[in-house]
Formats: sequence, structure tokens, C-alpha cells
Amino acid sequence: MKVGKQTIKFETLPCIFSTSSMVGPKEMQGPLASYFEQSSNDIYFGEKTFEKAESKMLNTCINHLISKNGLANNDIDLIFSGDLLNQCISSSFAIRDLEIPFLGLYGACSTFCEGLLLSSICIEANVAQQIIASASSHFCSAERQYRMPLEHGNQKSTTSQATVTGCGAALVTNSKKLDNGIHITYATPGKIVDLGVKDMSNMGAAMAPAVYSTIANHLNDTDRTLDYYDLVITGDLGVHGSDMLVELFKRENIDISSKHKDCGALIYDTTVQDVICGGSGCGCVASVFSSYIFNELKNKNLNKILLIATGALMSPLSSYQGETIPSIAHAISIENEVK
Amino acid sequence: MKVGKQTIKFETLPCIFSTSSMVGPKEMQGPLASYFEQSSNDIYFGEKTFEKAESKMLNTCINHLISKNGLANNDIDLIFSGDLLNQCISSSFAIRDLEIPFLGLYGACSTFCEGLLLSSICIEANVAQQIIASASSHFCSAERQYRMPLEHGNQKSTTSQATVTGCGAALVTNSKKLDNGIHITYATPGKIVDLGVKDMSNMGAAMAPAVYSTIANHLNDTDRTLDYYDLVITGDLGVHGSDMLVELFKRENIDISSKHKDCGALIYDTTVQDVICGGSGCGCVASVFSSYIFNELKNKNLNKILLIATGALMSPLSSYQGETIPSIAHAISIENEVK
Repeated sequence: MKVGKQTIKFETLPCIFSTSSMVGPKEMQGPLASYFEQSSNDIYFGEKTFEKAESKMLNTCINHLISKNGLANNDIDLIFSGDLLNQCISSSFAIRDLEIPFLGLYGACSTFCEGLLLSSICIEANVAQQIIASASSHFCSAERQYRMPLEHGNQKSTTSQATVTGCGAALVTNSKKLDNGIHITYATPGKIVDLGVKDMSNMGAAMAPAVYSTIANHLNDTDRTLDYYDLVITGDLGVHGSDMLVELFKRENIDISSKHKDCGALIYDTTVQDVICGGSGCGCVASVFSSYIFNELKNKNLNKILLIATGALMSPLSSYQGETIPSIAHAISIENEVK
Repeated sequence: MKVGKQTIKFETLPCIFSTSSMVGPKEMQGPLASYFEQSSNDIYFGEKTFEKAESKMLNTCINHLISKNGLANNDIDLIFSGDLLNQCISSSFAIRDLEIPFLGLYGACSTFCEGLLLSSICIEANVAQQIIASASSHFCSAERQYRMPLEHGNQKSTTSQATVTGCGAALVTNSKKLDNGIHITYATPGKIVDLGVKDMSNMGAAMAPAVYSTIANHLNDTDRTLDYYDLVITGDLGVHGSDMLVELFKRENIDISSKHKDCGALIYDTTVQDVICGGSGCGCVASVFSSYIFNELKNKNLNKILLIATGALMSPLSSYQGETIPSIAHAISIENEVK
């Protein structure tokens, strides 16, 4: 049911039953390396192009999620997936041979949360019992599409983030399957916020106000405060955007800094890895949630989290045409053992 | 609830309460001109670029749908939208100022049906009461992104289709609002089908097998035959793809030709307008359904239709890399006055 102005409360308590993640070589040099389920030392993942590599990675990750849970492809009712590539080809080609009904999403880096949100709605509607939500990105395919070919070796801006080579997939089921599992209890789909930022290499600044708007509306709609949550985790504001989010809450006399972490800041060690402000891309929040965060929930180190994935809904062409960056953020409340 | 292997039955009977359409000058020279609600003689819709024109058209169409129903933006719980442009900027910029929670879709030309399908699931889950599903395309923005700049004046292949400059938006509500209205009773989300067609200028051939698969599974899951429907309407196989669909059914000794129409063949007069095999693009099925077809349903000239939107999930880059065209088709059963 709808609560407040913008939030959905799930009465059926959709369950995140299992997750799977896969990343590239750089992510395996970062602090979360031990949490990723699969990885490749080859940035091409054995394929001939970066785009095919991204599809291969996502396909491997989804197949692993299905098989490790003892399922067959036809046990999956629906798959939601999206990515950053033009026409979302990473997802289409990853899913092509699976013979699972497929609904493609585009929400830039917010895609993974959009998929979890829609999976939960499908469970709530009782139109599907086992659904996969997935998303991917690849540093090299994104770099040449959005910025410059790698061979150009262009210098990065001090506010830039590095696209994560990684993906994640979550199996969302109806709760009957696991009574004291990890549940999606609320979702707050975001409205587009655009405060006029034009700088394509400062996505954090463009997206922070959208995150603020969605968190504020979520708390208002659910009559909760930040105290309710063990962790508020965004993906992907990076270091600079995270500072801006803290600043936006400070204006309302709220200190979010002790509660907040960002997937883009977690996945790399920004002090030694050459990533400037941290990671970004659909695959960042997807891989970090599907590995480290899900593990912390399972081990009860975290019990109540608000996951917020953020998307910068521009294209290189819209920026060349002088447009600002419309941003969006979707929030999902994920809780252990709901009573 | 799920019925059969791939189909959703809606118990709450989501209602298509109202639609709105807008098209460009060429569509106003075609046989459906009198059905379109809004149009522009200016292919730029008063804007400076084709991409901004497409956004303006979609924004105008959505605003009109909201205002003509006496609603305000905050009466709309959710909007689903997508288009053909890289990173779906047509939708993002069209929706940017509306302050309505937004979930972006990418399903190529299947996007409009994907939006109707997801809107219906949201109604079924009771997480929203009033939802808009929309999609757009623009001949000039698509032509320069997918093929060549218009100035190049390249010759068309004999199987090519022309991207429609048009858009449509549908207001999907819970049935309480209009008891004997136009209802979405079943939906069959498609699986990707790829039989190896590589020709980017023969999308009809690539997509016909996906349409066949979805219709066959829909009929099987619902225990219906083609006789049940007054019309089976696809968007957009064009003339050539439609012939292929008829041929695929003929192999099963089923004659679909008397029941089948295609939005891409309806929107233009292919004998006099320079469109080769007819129309295509997200905006084709969106504008034709939201005008002519919805009008026929309202006037009870049609009472039971199966609407199938088809998507070619490739990109220019995937084709340059030698890939075939993964295709998908989502079907929706739309019926008057369900007893």
C-alpha cells in the first residue's frame, strides 16, 4: 500500500533470498575483495570487446545465482536488468539465452534499486514468486562511450569517479520461503531533481540533492528518523557527493555522517587506488550490495538499512547540447526478521 | 496471479482510464491523422534540437493527459516511460519538472507495453492508484543516432521502416474509478528470441519470431484461441515482418491474417508515403494505441484485443561488433466491460 506521498509499504514482506556478485581486477585490489563471489583477472572476461566482456560478466553472475540456489532457469518468473550502455545491450545480450521473461530498465546508477523495487511490487501483487534483479557496468565500455577511448589517456577531474567493473544480481522471493530472512519492507521511488549542475565529471554534486529529497520524503512518509536505521547506504555519490549530502542534512540540523556510507567510497581505497572520488556505475551498488552489504545483513551485523541508488539521467549528447543533469534516487528499506 | 508458464492474470482488473497522443507532420499526412489528439507542423516542436523536440512532444502529451482528466501532477503516483535515445534522455527531460516518482524503462519499441504491464502490476499490488505509462520516438533523433545524419540522404533498404515522430501516454487506474471501462486482464511478458538475423534494416524479420513466441505462449497459458480476440495488434513489425508472422502461424495451420493488424502498417499509407515497410519506434505503438485503438475500444467497435509491442534489443555498436539482434515482445490482453 501507499503510505504518505511517495512511499510503498510491502505487506507481503518480499525476501531477498540470495545474491551473487562478480567484479574485475581493479575491484579485487580494493577493500571488499574478499566479499565478491566471482571475479576475473582479465578485463576482457575472455571476450573480444569490452561490451561483450560486460555481458559475459553479467551472464556468469546471473547463471551462478540460479545454479547455486539449486534452481533451473524456468524456476525464475521474471528478470529485471539494466546497465549504462546505449540501448542497454549489456543486459540484453547477457539474458538472451536464458529463456526467462525479461523487463529492461534504464535508471543509470539507480537501476539496481529500481529492479529490487519492481521485484518487490511483483511479489506484493502475487504475479511472480521468484524474480531476479540485476545490473552491471564496466570501466572500459563506459569510459569509451561516455568520455574518451582509453588510449587517449585523458586527465581526470578532481571530482570524477571511476566506473566500477562489476555486477550484482539478487533473487527476490515471496517470504514463505524463508520466514526469518532479509525483507524489503518499504520502497520510495524517486522524483527527478535537477538543481542545474552541468559538470559531467561531478556527478556526485548533481545527484546529492536527489538523494536528500528521497531520504527526507522516505523518513516523512514512514514516520521514521535516521535513528531507526543501522546504516544509510548510497550508491554512488563518491567522496565529494557524500560530503555534499552530509552538508544538506546539516542545514536541517541532522547529522547523517555517522550513519552514512557510500558504495562508491567503499569499493576502492581512494587513498591508494587511482579512482579520485571513488566508484560509480550501475555495477557499483549492485556488486557492493550483493556481496559485502548482503553478507553483513545475513550475519546480523546490520539489521535495518536504507539502500539508496542514485542515477544521473543525462547523456553525453544532452550535455553537449548545454543541458543540466536530471538526477534521481530510489530508496529501499531492507530489514532482518521483521516481526 | 501467474497462469501457465509466462502469463499474469490481473484479478483487480486495472483500467486504462484515458490516453493522450501527439505526433509530427508526417504522421498527420497518414490515415490516422484525425485520431491524434495533438500534433505539430514543426518537426522541431519549437525547440533547437531534435532531441529537445522529442522531449517537448512527450512532456506536452503527458501534461495534456493529466490536465484533461482534471488532475494535478501530485495526483499521479508513478510514471513509467522510455524511448530510443541513448540513456533515454527523451523521457528524463520530458519528466524532469513534473515532480512525479519516475521509473525509467528500456525495451526499445516494446517499451509502451512494458509500461502498461508494470502499471497493471502496481495496481494489482495496490501500491499506486493512478499511474502513467508513456513512450516516445522521433524520426530525426533516431535517424542520426542509429543510422546516418539526415543531411547524408542515404538510400533506404527495401525492408526498412521509418521511425515514427510521435508519443502516447496512458492513465492506468484501479477499476473502482470506472466500472465498465477498458481493462487490462492478462499480460504476457516476453522472453528474448534471437534466431540470428543481423540486418539492422530488417527489424521486422528479427522481431517476428519473438512475437510468434509470445502470442503462442499467451494463448497456451490462457487456454484461449485467436478466435477469442477481435484484433491482434502488433507494434511494430511493419509490412515485411507482418508477412513473416502470418507465415509462422500458417506453419501451425493457423490463419492469423484476418485478425492481425500492425501499428507500423496502420500509421502511414505505405503506397504513397515514403516509409518503405511502415512505421517503427517506441512512439509508433504508443501513439497508435493512445489514439485510434483506444477510440475503437471506447466506441465498442473493438471489445477484446491482444496488444503486442516488440523490441529489437540491439545497438549500432553491437551490430558493428557482428552480433545478431535479440528481440522481445510483450503482450497485453485489453478487454471492454469484463464480467
